[in-house]
Amino acid sequence: MNKKLYFTVGPAELYPTVPQHVQSALEEKIGVISHRGKQFQEIYKNAADGLRTLLNVPSDYHIFFLSSATEIWERIIQNCVESTSFHCVNGSFSKRFYEFSNELGKKAFVEKADFGKGFYPDKINVPAEAEIICLTYNETSSGVSMPITDINKFREKNKEALIFVDAVSGLPFPAFDYSKIDSTFFSVQKCFGLPAGLGVWIVNQRCMDKAESLLKKGKSIGTYHTLPSLLSKGKDNQTPETPNVWNIYLLSKVVEDFNKKGVETIRKETELKAKMLYDYIGSSQNFSYAVEDVNLRSLTTIVANTKLSSAEVNKKLEPFDMAVGSGYSSYKDTQVRIANFPAISVEQMEKLIAKMKELFN
Amino acid sequence: MNKKLYFTVGPAELYPTVPQHVQSALEEKIGVISHRGKQFQEIYKNAADGLRTLLNVPSDYHIFFLSSATEIWERIIQNCVESTSFHCVNGSFSKRFYEFSNELGKKAFVEKADFGKGFYPDKINVPAEAEIICLTYNETSSGVSMPITDINKFREKNKEALIFVDAVSGLPFPAFDYSKIDSTFFSVQKCFGLPAGLGVWIVNQRCMDKAESLLKKGKSIGTYHTLPSLLSKGKDNQTPETPNVWNIYLLSKVVEDFNKKGVETIRKETELKAKMLYDYIGSSQNFSYAVEDVNLRSLTTIVANTKLSSAEVNKKLEPFDMAVGSGYSSYKDTQVRIANFPAISVEQMEKLIAKMKELFN
Repeated sequence: MNKKLYFTVGPAELYPTVPQHVQSALEEKIGVISHRGKQFQEIYKNAADGLRTLLNVPSDYHIFFLSSATEIWERIIQNCVESTSFHCVNGSFSKRFYEFSNELGKKAFVEKADFGKGFYPDKINVPAEAEIICLTYNETSSGVSMPITDINKFREKNKEALIFVDAVSGLPFPAFDYSKIDSTFFSVQKCFGLPAGLGVWIVNQRCMDKAESLLKKGKSIGTYHTLPSLLSKGKDNQTPETPNVWNIYLLSKVVEDFNKKGVETIRKETELKAKMLYDYIGSSQNFSYAVEDVNLRSLTTIVANTKLSSAEVNKKLEPFDMAVGSGYSSYKDTQVRIANFPAISVEQMEKLIAKMKELFN
Repeated sequence: MNKKLYFTVGPAELYPTVPQHVQSALEEKIGVISHRGKQFQEIYKNAADGLRTLLNVPSDYHIFFLSSATEIWERIIQNCVESTSFHCVNGSFSKRFYEFSNELGKKAFVEKADFGKGFYPDKINVPAEAEIICLTYNETSSGVSMPITDINKFREKNKEALIFVDAVSGLPFPAFDYSKIDSTFFSVQKCFGLPAGLGVWIVNQRCMDKAESLLKKGKSIGTYHTLPSLLSKGKDNQTPETPNVWNIYLLSKVVEDFNKKGVETIRKETELKAKMLYDYIGSSQNFSYAVEDVNLRSLTTIVANTKLSSAEVNKKLEPFDMAVGSGYSSYKDTQVRIANFPAISVEQMEKLIAKMKELFN
């Protein structure tokens, strides 16, 4: 029995209700039912409707289920770019999204910021030829966030380009203004506290139209996971392929729990826990802020520099059944990353901070 | 509590040990652990090594984990076809694989057989320009199988082309001769008795070389799930993206169970259950063989014509907590499809047949 509490950023701690939903899934034989039957259609509809309520998604945006946010990066480029994309890159995940565009034979413009830094949209000029603008709400590698007020500035200067916001490790926390973005997406193993293996893609009609226009021009936009294919099955609450039925069911249940709790409560608790943790980091002898600009510090993925190596930090936390995430890649030793996701309660965050104060000052 | 026993062909009945492995997954927090950590690498290795033993995969073939067999169709065309593919099409799934090639802008040759019919390789001439030959071991839509002796004939006449065998709803039953094929693949919700959301792709070095050669020519072969990307992570027992960790774990456990039982026992039981069921169909007043050629009748996906509609068949079976699959698409009413997968025991198949005799004669 593993009794450790994981404050890691992904995969992350399961939402506390997940074990009971897994039992229901076994009892109701959710792993066995047909993905072309009525029961699955209801599960799909519950998950999509629940997300629409939770994330306040307008009725004319579609919600599709794919296998990961990584897959969604690929599908965005395939479906919505004929020639040119634009990317804000300030960490490993936004960089990988940018590279996908090149790997698919497109021309990709990039605005770069150093690891741990963010963007100031007033200073950014997106080339007029860019068909899509790719923004990352939350760089899970560095803990830098792009505030919604900054995201919204891109639309003002770029009326034509489609705007995509990678909201992995963010949603349901950010309350996006959908009139300013065309699409957002996330994977369920972060803030939704579920096992990995499912990505959720929210798109508006402009994205659909773009994919259709590429098809009409005779361009290849993929196969089973093109936007038209996803919509053709999605409007019947189905997926083109046999999907991860089990996880769509678990998502529908966790979203139901989130909606019962209320997204505003989740947001307030996230802010409270983030403030507690950042206050401690600011006063600590061992830890210090990894992100200098206070306005760009993520409230869901909290990154700190550490004098003790991350391995030593975890070694000292281990007897108390706690673990934090190490830094990303070359920051593995010198940073820690701490998930402030809905699965972590205020009490659990208090306990972690108290223990860190005691162990590391 | 759903106590029904599903003889449906996919998703299908879970292997009986799955519920206990799900409990272990919860206790060991498999949904929480990092996909970049040692524990996941061991799970990956156990699953791959176990499959290598079970399916007698040569040591120079790679085993990769993707999200579905549908995805693998797409990756095959992207990674291994510059211009031209060849497909044997005799049902909905082989047809979809063929269509993928066109949708990705390739020229696809096709040898067609009617629904319920199969192929006679001696009569087939694959165009010399075809870079890959796509065969379907088991058409899950119609219940037609391609015997291994027939699969093996393609290599003799086509030394250069890469040979791919779709083994969905087949493996671990067929004992492929890997010297005659370059790749095979399946999804886990069929004969492996697992929840859907995972595809397994077995490829040899010739496939790897082909992908590398396309890359060198400056062709796009995809992004995170190109063969070189899968290998680059796979050799460290990792995946490029955050995968369906939970299902890879469950697969590793079920494969362990299969290996304990022994693949030969599984094959013998499959043959025994198939014989019992086909004997009944041959003698039934209501059911009749859907596949005329006895040599082409699938032993794992058993399809029968039915005088009573498939819905009525299931209505009569329902009080006894049993369900069979309906026919595929336009055969929905007039055929039934019965899974003869390892999750169904000899006793359970006997019970189904006894009940069908009683109800339908």
